[in-house]
Amino acid sequence: MQPDSLLPVFSSSKGATAIVIALLVERGLLDLDALVTHYWPEFGQNGKDKVTVRQLLSHQAGLTGVDGGFSFEDLYEHKALAERLAAQRPYWYPGQAYAYHALTIGTLANELIIRIDGRTVQQLLREDICAPRNVDLWMGTPESEDARCVDVEIPPMEEVMAFLASSSLVLETDGLGSLNSPPGGALGLLSAVNSVESRRAGQPAAGMLANGRGLAKLYATTIFDLEGPRLLSDETIAQVAQTQVYGLELGTGLQAKFGIIFQGAFSPRWPFGSYRAFGHDGAGGSIGFADPHHQLSFGYTVKRIPLPGGVDQRALELSKIARQCVTS
Amino acid sequence: MQPDSLLPVFSSSKGATAIVIALLVERGLLDLDALVTHYWPEFGQNGKDKVTVRQLLSHQAGLTGVDGGFSFEDLYEHKALAERLAAQRPYWYPGQAYAYHALTIGTLANELIIRIDGRTVQQLLREDICAPRNVDLWMGTPESEDARCVDVEIPPMEEVMAFLASSSLVLETDGLGSLNSPPGGALGLLSAVNSVESRRAGQPAAGMLANGRGLAKLYATTIFDLEGPRLLSDETIAQVAQTQVYGLELGTGLQAKFGIIFQGAFSPRWPFGSYRAFGHDGAGGSIGFADPHHQLSFGYTVKRIPLPGGVDQRALELSKIARQCVTS
Amino acid sequence: MQPDSLLPVFSSSKGATAIVIALLVERGLLDLDALVTHYWPEFGQNGKDKVTVRQLLSHQAGLTGVDGGFSFEDLYEHKALAERLAAQRPYWYPGQAYAYHALTIGTLANELIIRIDGRTVQQLLREDICAPRNVDLWMGTPESEDARCVDVEIPPMEEVMAFLASSSLVLETDGLGSLNSPPGGALGLLSAVNSVESRRAGQPAAGMLANGRGLAKLYATTIFDLEGPRLLSDETIAQVAQTQVYGLELGTGLQAKFGIIFQGAFSPRWPFGSYRAFGHDGAGGSIGFADPHHQLSFGYTVKRIPLPGGVDQRALELSKIARQCVTS
Repeated sequence: MQPDSLLPVFSSSKGATAIVIALLVERGLLDLDALVTHYWPEFGQNGKDKVTVRQLLSHQAGLTGVDGGFSFEDLYEHKALAERLAAQRPYWYPGQAYAYHALTIGTLANELIIRIDGRTVQQLLREDICAPRNVDLWMGTPESEDARCVDVEIPPMEEVMAFLASSSLVLETDGLGSLNSPPGGALGLLSAVNSVESRRAGQPAAGMLANGRGLAKLYATTIFDLEGPRLLSDETIAQVAQTQVYGLELGTGLQAKFGIIFQGAFSPRWPFGSYRAFGHDGAGGSIGFADPHHQLSFGYTVKRIPLPGGVDQRALELSKIARQCVTS
Repeated sequence: MQPDSLLPVFSSSKGATAIVIALLVERGLLDLDALVTHYWPEFGQNGKDKVTVRQLLSHQAGLTGVDGGFSFEDLYEHKALAERLAAQRPYWYPGQAYAYHALTIGTLANELIIRIDGRTVQQLLREDICAPRNVDLWMGTPESEDARCVDVEIPPMEEVMAFLASSSLVLETDGLGSLNSPPGGALGLLSAVNSVESRRAGQPAAGMLANGRGLAKLYATTIFDLEGPRLLSDETIAQVAQTQVYGLELGTGLQAKFGIIFQGAFSPRWPFGSYRAFGHDGAGGSIGFADPHHQLSFGYTVKRIPLPGGVDQRALELSKIARQCVTS
Repeated sequence: MQPDSLLPVFSSSKGATAIVIALLVERGLLDLDALVTHYWPEFGQNGKDKVTVRQLLSHQAGLTGVDGGFSFEDLYEHKALAERLAAQRPYWYPGQAYAYHALTIGTLANELIIRIDGRTVQQLLREDICAPRNVDLWMGTPESEDARCVDVEIPPMEEVMAFLASSSLVLETDGLGSLNSPPGGALGLLSAVNSVESRRAGQPAAGMLANGRGLAKLYATTIFDLEGPRLLSDETIAQVAQTQVYGLELGTGLQAKFGIIFQGAFSPRWPFGSYRAFGHDGAGGSIGFADPHHQLSFGYTVKRIPLPGGVDQRALELSKIARQCVTS
């Protein structure tokens, strides 16, 4: 491990995708209250014609999986997967429930971005944010960075299985699940992120590589003037960080809280900042966020995946100390 | 008990009512997104003018009981009860909460069916499904079948009371309750289903008689060609099996999940199949369902009511084995 | 303490504010389904243009606190606080969640009342209800009543802290909280209600003074002819007592249930009557309600604040006995 090593950050990728979405809001190109079909007409099939962008991007649209399942190869082939999702009937009546779209949210957001901007989320992130501001993270990592890439280390299988056995997460293979279909389920995904295919594809929900500094700087560009004017206005941040759903998550029964893709801060589950904070953690322990109230941004990556999944508890501790530093 | 004995199946009756509703959807006669008043104008009284068919049939309309209470005689007299429900103000703002309409859902669905088809749910079930396909179940059991009818056996009262005392179910007589008003509350209902009056009336929420084979065959006709073409298309099944509500049930605080009348499968509470399964259990232990993913249907009835109420745990075990048989 | 001593009743104040709101509904001046902006155009700023009166008055509008915080002086200055709330972006997407607006609900309801009637909630309560019917409670207590005013007694601080430490309530100072900003948080509020400033201001969410008889009589005037015809019709009561929200409260994760400002009776949390009852308790132990089903009204105040907060358990016991008296 070196200071600039790049690690797979799992769902912290969603935070970068969310920032690209926010940038389109900032530019007046995306209206959260519009119907998805306004930008993506084919999406309106099978009872999805009244789904709003707001619902789609806050895990309410009922597309947590893909009928018939999908392989990792399917996941990396954006276009075909987007078409299958557009054709599909939602697993629940949109807006009446929500559940974390662990992988499909990346495909859904990306297609929306393509329809609006012409470029993919990966291109937009690189060209409009990371390249001009020297932000060291990669959604779709090129060969040139391979020497810096480090695999995440999966805990011994008996520890993982013991955790899953004691978990309230339902991981049946034949049912509705946010992780439905990847060969090997959640465990399969843990291994797949280290593959060169995943690295190159940079799937927008879970395939980004970064280091802690890169994540922190990405969020910093949203609220501070940093190698250019800040990317997002207070008005835009208020819109995307606003809580969109709260309550019991369908399938797991856990309490979650989401903004526009972003996880809701100031919740017992994700206590990473004030009620104005916005960010996202990853199954491998990473997290990135900005907190306009405390005027700080934060990034964290880790090589050995901590149990239980999600953000590393040490990262939350660190972020608490950081808050205390700026308020005392 | 004989192989063709008929037993009261309590709320498994709702599954048959739901299939009749689905048949009207299949025939293009019922639009789930329409207002109830489109078919049943008098329903729009006292703040119910914006209630959709979808909400009415997924326990969201706030009509769990009848103001002033009702007797079993009232329950069997469909028309008068439907009129009282149509006139009533919902107990909650429709769509803002849901609670199991243990008895009234039958009356509400039946009136909707009558307004659309002219026939009652009982007539439609017999004439269009059970008679032509030789399905042995009876919503409104005629004298001709009396010799085959067997009473369900209620557990010793001390066992029932001990269960109710330890239950989180709220069964106050002066409040909002899905079972409000039948003399004797839940216990009264347990006894009433064995009466000849209940058998003849075949109240569409709880008054059907069946055996396991009858329930299994009813569901089989929906997904298989069986003495005629299958009754429901994939499209219709996807509509009615789709989750409509999920979360904390008002009154009990339990987690439930409902489609269009059907209980939501693939939930911790009703783990009877894949996310595409649709069915309904009964307080007396019975259950019926179809699972298009596993390509099977299932029916189960039992004479001695098992505790705690709802589907017999042995039925769930059996259904699990059945799934394993078809997938291995 | 004397029979006519006046005590701060904390959130039981909200019950009086709710009755004034109900009176405007009764008079045909307020439509719960109208947009707030219909009466209060400035309210529609920053994503609040589609908020209905119904949502605003059932803790769904996302205005639990005021950006930048507020002092008690700010709280007593109605106009400026109302303007700040009107300008603010909701903490959540209105209607997608709810959380108790412990203080701001008073300001929001008051501004609505002023826009409709021209008078404040305090004036309307006095002129149209309390003065003509001799109801002994004061929202904005004049000097003339000072001799009868008694301070509530706050439990020893170690008891309060021990309770808060064991509580699931989140009381962070930098986050979203229904009590955000008053200096000292919840504890600060406990002390402030005894101040002359609070007494004079009579903030409509928490600043009323009353005795048990006054609270009981206030509710009695709504359902009985008492020194004049009853104030509210069955129709109006049904509208305002109807459950508007139920589920997990954002921030605390507690289960709550609200009508139009009124707390939902017949819930495990507030078991003060039948499903038709309407009322509100206060953090200091007081409660007032009416129950049309049991044909009784009830008021209770207490000098020494009982732990844990909210309605005194002895008041609930008393109300249960009162119900038994009228039904046996």
